[in-house]
Amino acid sequence: MARIAYFGPQGTFTEQAARVLAAGDELVPAETIRLALTAVRHGEADAACVPVENSVEGAVTATLDGLSDADPLVAVAEAILPVHFSVLKRPGTTEIRTVASHPHALAQVRDWLEANLPGATPVASSSTAAAAVGVHAGDFDAAVTAPVAVEHYPLEVVATGVADVSDARTRFLLVRKPGELPEPTGADRTSIVAAAVNRTGTLAELLTELASRGINLTRLDARPTRDNFGEYRFFIDFEGHVAEPRIIDALAALRRRCRNLRFLGSHPRADGIRSTIEPGADNDSFLDATAWVDAVRKGDLA
Amino acid sequence: MARIAYFGPQGTFTEQAARVLAAGDELVPAETIRLALTAVRHGEADAACVPVENSVEGAVTATLDGLSDADPLVAVAEAILPVHFSVLKRPGTTEIRTVASHPHALAQVRDWLEANLPGATPVASSSTAAAAVGVHAGDFDAAVTAPVAVEHYPLEVVATGVADVSDARTRFLLVRKPGELPEPTGADRTSIVAAAVNRTGTLAELLTELASRGINLTRLDARPTRDNFGEYRFFIDFEGHVAEPRIIDALAALRRRCRNLRFLGSHPRADGIRSTIEPGADNDSFLDATAWVDAVRKGDLA
Repeated sequence: MARIAYFGPQGTFTEQAARVLAAGDELVPAETIRLALTAVRHGEADAACVPVENSVEGAVTATLDGLSDADPLVAVAEAILPVHFSVLKRPGTTEIRTVASHPHALAQVRDWLEANLPGATPVASSSTAAAAVGVHAGDFDAAVTAPVAVEHYPLEVVATGVADVSDARTRFLLVRKPGELPEPTGADRTSIVAAAVNRTGTLAELLTELASRGINLTRLDARPTRDNFGEYRFFIDFEGHVAEPRIIDALAALRRRCRNLRFLGSHPRADGIRSTIEPGADNDSFLDATAWVDAVRKGDLA
Repeated sequence: MARIAYFGPQGTFTEQAARVLAAGDELVPAETIRLALTAVRHGEADAACVPVENSVEGAVTATLDGLSDADPLVAVAEAILPVHFSVLKRPGTTEIRTVASHPHALAQVRDWLEANLPGATPVASSSTAAAAVGVHAGDFDAAVTAPVAVEHYPLEVVATGVADVSDARTRFLLVRKPGELPEPTGADRTSIVAAAVNRTGTLAELLTELASRGINLTRLDARPTRDNFGEYRFFIDFEGHVAEPRIIDALAALRRRCRNLRFLGSHPRADGIRSTIEPGADNDSFLDATAWVDAVRKGDLA
């Protein structure tokens, strides 16, 4: 049984994602995203489960920075979870005067609280799971939590599926040390991070290498490097798998343009969306083109 | 005296930025970023002061979304503040057992707290200013706050300049309804937001329009639209001012490529960094080129 570190504590959305991505494995909470990644780097865990982007809040910067610093790690799987909260109370509580949760969670259920618990005072806690602990301890009357929290704490469900924006989603990654990659499926995502000098047109050049090969972006985040407010690392996700000739060709081109290019993984997309293939940019076209040049070199064709 | 809405409450970093950007004006706290922007849109305030990016946390998504939805607003000035906290206590407190602040602030001073107040329990509050209110009310012993908080609450300074990452910075904007623009200074920033269809190469094409005119990006954020996890709005900041011929030429090109392009302002950079001008892409080159084409059309040159 593999040992999977996840960004804890127990009872959060990341634990829920880890259950999807590593069903049956041993799940070990880590206090921060950085510590979950470090556990894999130090061999204390076989893989780590961490959030990478949220449709409302944007990129999870601690994950992006954690993947680009220190020893390389690669994503081998992803899960996308809807951000639907549960509201939990102590059994027997009749009047709810205080509702605790992480400030981000409280912000995402404000309309629901106003409509359903108008008399309750929202209280900030350090995590959704800490709010559940506080309710169990008698500090607050109710907690806004991930659905999985009710399995860890002896609390009663007031409501499930609570969310002001009903289609908010978070994407999570399962990351390992570099090694065997998942097989290509035709519905894959490849991730890289490129550190670029602050020169006019650098990013346009990198993206044109992908676009000219018919490769569709799925995400782009520019993160300032710690040292310089004006210098950036570009986190780029695109359709396809590093086993495909069109992706191999693009990665080699990016490698020529970037001194600091890191491969962050190729894995199946959780949403199952198959890659868009532009005319002339399918894998057979790349193989045919290479074969043609080989034949020209040998004098067989012209 | 103008009336300036800012993302409150009183005593936060945004109030501090508003004092820099609107010295002498009436400053009115708003409960959320969205409400600060709405106050300007409804004519209840002349301008709003909101955070837009942080060197550690990344983009402030509520500001980006708030500027691209609803009626247009434009940034007319910016301020960059170091994220240095103050630690405040009630006068006379001898032992500090609890330290309250917003979870983001606590995360940014964790090493400092461990070194200087190792026995104190960190407690999450809804804002840095709410922590100061809680200390004043006797709920906690100390608060981690923006430096300006001590001017609003009768508390005593334990320490100033507190920050684990000493060069963390936040950039703030002063936004108004569209109208007269600030004069170009040679060290300006222009901001736009472009909604793009999910088609291979769209972003590469937009950035190439800027790069081919020698225009240097200073920031790029891709935000998913609310409706579709795969569709994006691109928030692009670049060097230059809409009054310059090279910027006019680029914006017209972007307008041709995007049905939904919104101008978010041209204003002096707080860091005073002058625009990089590539050879052949200075304003005189653009004017000369236009004059040459005019002359060709008239039959004066060929």
